[in-house]
Order: sequence, then structure tokens, then C-alpha cells
Amino acid sequence: MEAKTRVVVWGEFRHEKKNPKVAEIYPGGMHEAVAASLRKNSLLDVSTAWLDQDAEHGLGGDVLEKTDVLVWWGHKAHGDVSDGVVAKVKARVLEGMGLVVLHSGHYAKVFKALMGTTCSLKWREPTDKERIWNVAPHHPITQGIGDYFEIPAEEMYGEPFGIPEPDELIFISWFTGGEVFRSGATWQRGNGRVFYFRPGHETCPTYHQAEVQKVIANGVLWARPTVRIPDVCPNSPALEPLPADPLATERPTEGFR
Amino acid sequence: MEAKTRVVVWGEFRHEKKNPKVAEIYPGGMHEAVAASLRKNSLLDVSTAWLDQDAEHGLGGDVLEKTDVLVWWGHKAHGDVSDGVVAKVKARVLEGMGLVVLHSGHYAKVFKALMGTTCSLKWREPTDKERIWNVAPHHPITQGIGDYFEIPAEEMYGEPFGIPEPDELIFISWFTGGEVFRSGATWQRGNGRVFYFRPGHETCPTYHQAEVQKVIANGVLWARPTVRIPDVCPNSPALEPLPADPLATERPTEGFR
Amino acid sequence: MEAKTRVVVWGEFRHEKKNPKVAEIYPGGMHEAVAASLRKNSLLDVSTAWLDQDAEHGLGGDVLEKTDVLVWWGHKAHGDVSDGVVAKVKARVLEGMGLVVLHSGHYAKVFKALMGTTCSLKWREPTDKERIWNVAPHHPITQGIGDYFEIPAEEMYGEPFGIPEPDELIFISWFTGGEVFRSGATWQRGNGRVFYFRPGHETCPTYHQAEVQKVIANGVLWARPTVRIPDVCPNSPALEPLPADPLATERPTEGFR
Amino acid sequence: MEAKTRVVVWGEFRHEKKNPKVAEIYPGGMHEAVAASLRKNSLLDVSTAWLDQDAEHGLGGDVLEKTDVLVWWGHKAHGDVSDGVVAKVKARVLEGMGLVVLHSGHYAKVFKALMGTTCSLKWREPTDKERIWNVAPHHPITQGIGDYFEIPAEEMYGEPFGIPEPDELIFISWFTGGEVFRSGATWQRGNGRVFYFRPGHETCPTYHQAEVQKVIANGVLWARPTVRIPDVCPNSPALEPLPADPLATERPTEGFR
Repeated sequence: MEAKTRVVVWGEFRHEKKNPKVAEIYPGGMHEAVAASLRKNSLLDVSTAWLDQDAEHGLGGDVLEKTDVLVWWGHKAHGDVSDGVVAKVKARVLEGMGLVVLHSGHYAKVFKALMGTTCSLKWREPTDKERIWNVAPHHPITQGIGDYFEIPAEEMYGEPFGIPEPDELIFISWFTGGEVFRSGATWQRGNGRVFYFRPGHETCPTYHQAEVQKVIANGVLWARPTVRIPDVCPNSPALEPLPADPLATERPTEGFR
Repeated sequence: MEAKTRVVVWGEFRHEKKNPKVAEIYPGGMHEAVAASLRKNSLLDVSTAWLDQDAEHGLGGDVLEKTDVLVWWGHKAHGDVSDGVVAKVKARVLEGMGLVVLHSGHYAKVFKALMGTTCSLKWREPTDKERIWNVAPHHPITQGIGDYFEIPAEEMYGEPFGIPEPDELIFISWFTGGEVFRSGATWQRGNGRVFYFRPGHETCPTYHQAEVQKVIANGVLWARPTVRIPDVCPNSPALEPLPADPLATERPTEGFR
Repeated sequence: MEAKTRVVVWGEFRHEKKNPKVAEIYPGGMHEAVAASLRKNSLLDVSTAWLDQDAEHGLGGDVLEKTDVLVWWGHKAHGDVSDGVVAKVKARVLEGMGLVVLHSGHYAKVFKALMGTTCSLKWREPTDKERIWNVAPHHPITQGIGDYFEIPAEEMYGEPFGIPEPDELIFISWFTGGEVFRSGATWQRGNGRVFYFRPGHETCPTYHQAEVQKVIANGVLWARPTVRIPDVCPNSPALEPLPADPLATERPTEGFR
Repeated sequence: MEAKTRVVVWGEFRHEKKNPKVAEIYPGGMHEAVAASLRKNSLLDVSTAWLDQDAEHGLGGDVLEKTDVLVWWGHKAHGDVSDGVVAKVKARVLEGMGLVVLHSGHYAKVFKALMGTTCSLKWREPTDKERIWNVAPHHPITQGIGDYFEIPAEEMYGEPFGIPEPDELIFISWFTGGEVFRSGATWQRGNGRVFYFRPGHETCPTYHQAEVQKVIANGVLWARPTVRIPDVCPNSPALEPLPADPLATERPTEGFR
């Protein structure tokens, strides 16, 4: 029997404590809403962690060691995430852990570090309707989604989005106000798979919507590790006979004196 | 008349001071050898900078402002490059500056930051002959190079190379000892172009070789900026009429109490 | 002095003869409107060709030999284009000729042959406003365009678009009716560059619009050849000593009898 | 219980009948050797087909309908494969069927049609040792393979290889004679996955080698369909209110008379 995929849903979990509107929509926290939806899938073993949980934001000890896929939502407190934790998460992704980055996580330190770019975009407070088009109907992440789905009201994110050209573009959003956005995209980074998925403003009930939950679950399953390979940079002996000392004769000995 | 492309060749410039073998091959420093070869091209306005030049490694003041393409060679002192300078160089690349990274620069902080990966590889001290195959004969970087060229003796770099899938793979190296390596590759990062080119161990006269000089000059010309765009993340007004307040009706008001 | 880039604008040129509305908008033919706009650029030497010009659709003799970039618009008569001509055009692209494919040319035989996919899409007769977003502000094709531009009324094309993942995604369209589309994209094919650009329904004055003309001119300049390399598949002698006859000893001689 | 993946191994099956050396190595035909190795995997339901089996080369009737992944080996008789069969195979791949193309299948009509390029390369009769380097250790296709494996004697294929930039580069080969080659690569084409794998000259016992069998089995499993979507190009009603008739006012009515 196949082992369950160990998923950690990480949430900033601050808006919920300060903004009654957010607390109303996500009484247990946004991360708990996402985790609850993933727990419906019997292939997944789901836990949560959050920014103020402890000094390592709930990701210390052997937590990352035992995580197959990490889901990340953060917004206004990206700067409060410890650089040391970010370095550990990045290293684990490069070893093979999957990473699903949600919404305002486009500015999370770890996402920016893995992309190497600004990850900037246009934005507008949530009034628009968002229609998310499936541009990769063959992809595991879009199974069960159909041609498109709609979110009644969401924050607008607009192009240009400061990301490297995705390995695979999965979704493009249409907004009432006239913008478009690459709302779902994947990148291989080292041995780990990264999936960015746009929706999820804290004042919208987006993570209660079935299609959004389906995409996140598909993304988690898609991002499961195939390997875990530590980083090395080995001195490597030759596999074929080498010349005795090519530099002895080939290296210029007079020319540069 | 077209303005000249302003190139800065940055060198670590430490091996040359400590290792007589390196000093013999590159009496003015490795960066000066690369710069001298680029100065033969009348389209380029070439200067140099180096690690111990000053507190900002010769890249302070308005140097980066006035640089179109930066060429980077570093090896054992990557850790001595200031994080602040690295952040500035990275930001300039994302705005549009070109970056050509040479050889052991695969481990330069700025290259790793732009790639988002380990950039690790296999290696072996220089005894191998290296044959560099042109796998992109259409590409501006390979013009004048032919099917392949050889370097009599070079350090071996072997796969797997810990980089993101290149936008364009340009060269693959064959080594006598039995290894292969993706020796030339390009990536778009933000508005800037990045070209990695493998050869150039400090104890080999590689940067005196005509084909190597040709590739570096081609790479510099290819990496010239088209734009310079500062990073912004603007709040953006709608271009089309928006619904009055969709959340007023669409947002669940009872369900989560 | 640099030689001019030789451009051929190929048009189907049938709608114009049958539909008075099209003839009114494009009295000399759609290809002549596109050619006229390109002729404003002094770097370009522009001619035209069309489906019913002769048995080879104006592309026989040494026309393709002397073409650097071919611009292609076709719609309802794709099937009337001779397979022999298509094979020649495709071969020239693979040798290095640039190709700019416009609008309904997504179903042109030569575009489908170069893509290897269906190139299918959703569509709707022109009533929508189209807003074309620039998602690659660094790219030569988008210079002078800004964040976006609008076409007052155009045929809608919607996702999923049956193309291989583009090398570079350049534009994404927003349509009033609620759809999105990858409206500008590039692919390297052999030694030639291919640019697909969406707008240009025959009953709309799209090719009279300045921004559209600018993008096509940029696309033509971007697609200029770097090389011309005929297709070969050579038997190639070894560059290093080979074993005497490895198969003599290594090949199993008994095991499979 | 998961349904088995239905695999058809297609072989040209002519060398085996004319060349005693080939018949000795592959007494049942090369396709049977590949099929036999795949049959060891209980997830696969494997059958075979060949060029001279019937007028449709064993791929008529509902064979393609019932195929999940097709494995293809051809060499000197590519021209004898019916264009109608090629069109059907290509259409099935675009709908979602996986395709694994082996060795000289680089020149198979269907591979060339899916790539859109020449697929040409350098070659030399088999004397070289080939060392196949794994450049994608995270990829499902390389699991169980390690850093590299060797084939004692194989035909040499050398760069440049006339393919579009792969979605993922999986293997690079080193040859004794001094060449390199992109020996394993993947492309998404429509809804289907394509994997090209280089080894397998008819006079070498390559398909009896464990590592080669492992890669082919991994490739078949990786190429399994997620969907089957027929090609359509639908006229699509608007999802949002459209302007009454923008062209009535926006279209120029005087300017072109």
C-alpha cells in the first residue's frame, strides 16, 4: 500500500486575528480551511503550521524532513519570516519537496528566492469577478475543472507578472475590470516541483469554493516528490584514460612573460 | 550613430596574486585578459572591476547605473562578495542589464540568486581535453564558431548541473575523461538576459583562445538591454466598469458564524 | 551599410474580392495594407504575394531564396495552398527564414506543420473589444507598445489554444465577452524564428491601427535570419581514437541462438 | 483496481528478415524484444504491431482507439509507412495518447510531424562506447538509473540534433569518438506526451540491456494519458454582455473609398 503524502499547509495567520471580516470567513484561520479541504483526500496526511507558532514558524525540528509537499500562504508579514527558515525550505524544495504557493505568496521570500525575479504584479482590492481559464487541459492539475471556473469576487492581479517563463502555463485569469493574469504556472526547481496558484484574498471566501479546493488538491498531488537528493558538488575521478599531462606541452610557457 | 555598449568585466582577481602559475598566464589579471579581448570590438566600451578594488568591489557609485552588460568571473571568494552589492547587481539585471557568467561563476551569489537553484556540478582538476559542441547554430552567440571547438586542457565540469531548464541550450561539452556538460545556456530573468559560459579555469590559458573570446563577445552583444524598467507593484484602477459591490451579496454572511 | 531585410507579405486575397465590406476596408487587399505599413520602415524591402497569383501562389522561382522574413495571412482557403509550396516554405524556415503568422493563419498548413499540433481555438464573430496585454516588456517585439493596447472590435479567439508551450509568451488578450487568449507567442523552429500574432479579422480595420502595425514591424525585425543552413544528416568520422572492434567481443554471440 | 496501461510496440521488422546479424540478436524481431521487457511490468498490457503486418501496419481498426502508449522503432522504411496511418497516429497523440520514439525513429514521419523540424543529426556506424548521463535525476523517466550508464557499442548520433528545444532534457550521451547528443528528451504535444530515447541500433543488443529496458518502461509509464480530448474549434457564445454593435460606429466608413 502506498504511503500517504505528507502535506503541511503553512499560513501567515495574522489577518484572521485582526480583521473581523477575515475571521468571519475563516474562523479557524485560512490555513485550516485549506487543510480541511485537503483532508477530504485519503491519499493525503495533512497538518498545519503558522508564522507565530514558534521561532521557526512551525517548520523547525524535523518537520521539513517529514514533509512531502508544503502549501504556502502569506501576505503582509513576509518580512517576519526568518531568513534561516526560508533557506531551509528552499533547500528542501531543491532536494525534492513539492511547493504550492498561493495568492499573495507570490511575494513570499521562498518563492522569490526560487524564481530569482521580482514576482511583482498589478493589483486591485476585491471587486472584480475572476474567470479562470484552463489552458492546459491535459495537465494533472486541471483534471475535473473543465474549460473555466469563476470566482464571484476576488482581488485583481494583472500583468506583467515578474516571473521566469513558466515550464507549463496552466491557468489564465480574466477580470471584469479588464485585466488578465497567468494564474497557474509550474516550474521545476532542482528536484522539487513548484506550483503557483493565484486566488485567495483574505477577505473573500475563495478557499471554501469547490473548484479552488480541487485545484489545490491536484497541485499537491502533482508536486509529490520522486526523489530526495542532497546537494553535493563532488570531485569526480575520470571514467576514461586521461592524457599524462596535457598542460606540460600545451600550456604556453613563454608567451606571457 | 549607435551608442557603444558599456561593458564591465568583473574579476575576483585573487588567484593571480597568490598563484605564480596563474600570474604567468594572466599577468594583468584574468579580468584584464577578458576585457582586452572585448576591446577589439568597436561596438563595446569596456572597463573592469574587481573584488578588492574597494568596499563595493568596484561596483559602487553609479557604475551599475552606467553598465549595459556585466561579465562575472569568481571562484574561491564568492563568500567575500557583499550581500548588498549582490542585491544591487541582481536588481539591475531584473531591470534590464545583461549578465555573462563565466566558469566558476556558477557558484557566484548573484548567479545562484537569479537561478534559484544549487548550481552544483561535478568537477576535476584540469587534465581533460574539452570539446565544446554547438547545439544552437542559429543563435547569435554561436556565430563564427562552427560545429565545435576544442580547449587543449581544462577543468572538467560534469552533469547533473543544478540549474533550471535553460531557455536555450547553446553548447554541450565533451570531456576526455568521459563526462558531458551543458556549457552554454541562456535564461531571461526579468528584463535582463543571462548567459552562462563554462570554460575558464584560472590555471589554463583559456581566455587567450580565439574561439572562447569570440563566444564571450557574442554573448555580451546578445545580452545588451532592450529596456530599463524599475520594479513596481502598482495598485491599478479598473479599465472596465466594475460591479457595485459583489461581495455584499455573494459573500456568505451566515455560514461561518 | 547593412543590407535591407527582404520581406514578403503573403495574403490569401479572396475575401477582398467577394465581400464588399472587406474590399471597403482593404481596397488593395489585406496583404497590401500590411505591406504598406511595413514599407514605412527603411530597414525593410517589402513585396507581396497571394494565393491566386500563380500556380505557386507567388512563392515560386527564387522568391523564397530571396526572402528573409515571410508574413502570412490566410483564412478560408488554407486547403487551396499547394502541399509542395508548404513544404518549401517550411524547409526555408528550418534553414533560417523568419515567419510571422497573422490571425486566422493559425490554421495555415505551414504553421500547423511547424507547430506539430492542432492549433485549434474557440472563436466568435467580431463584436468584442480586445485588450492586448504585454506580458514581455523586455522583448524586442513589444517595444513602443506600453502595458496594453485596445482594438475596438475584433473576432474573439479563446483558450485553450492548441499550440506547443511557446518559447516566449508575448501577449495575452482580454475580450469583453469573457475570454482570454495567448495572442502573441514565439517559437524557434530549426534555424528560423516564428512569431504568431492574433489580431486581424478581415471585416475589421485592424491592420490600419498603429499599434498593430508596430507589433508586426517589430516581429519582422525580430524574425530576421542569423544564418542559412541547409538540412544535412552526415556520416561523421570519429574525432578521437575508437576501439578496434568492440562488438567482436562485447556482442553476445551465443545467447540468442 | 487501476486499469492496465495498454501499450503497443511498433517495429519496422525488416532488418531482422534480411540481416542475419540482426536476426541473431533479435530472433523474434526488435519489437518483440522491447515488448518482452515491458511485459515484466504488471501495470502494462503489451501487444505489438509491425510495418508489413497489413495495409495499416497493424494499427488499423480500433487498435489506436485502445492504445494508451505507442512505442515506435523504424529505420530504413520510414517512407513505406502510409501517410494516412501517420495522420491517425499524430491525431491520437494530440488527443492524449503517449508516444515513445526510439533511436532511428527520429526520422519517423510521425515524430517529424509532431516536432515540426528536420530531426537531422550526425551519425556513425556502431563502434563507439556510449555513456548516457542522467541530467534530470528528479524525473520519473530516470528513476533507478543512477548518474549514468554505458552501452558497450552503439551507433553514434551527434549534435546538432534538429529538434525544437525540449520541454525537459533527460539524458546527454558521451561517445568515445568525441561527440555528444541529447539522448533523452520530452515534449508535450496537444494532450499527449512524447519521449524520444536514442539507443537501439539494429546490429547491437541494446534492447537486451537492463538499463535501456528500465528507461523505456519508465518512459511508457510517464507517457500514460491523463485525458482524451477530440480536436474541436467551436464557435463560442459570449459569457459576458457584449456591446450592441461596436463596428457600426467604430468601423471607418469613408476613409477607404
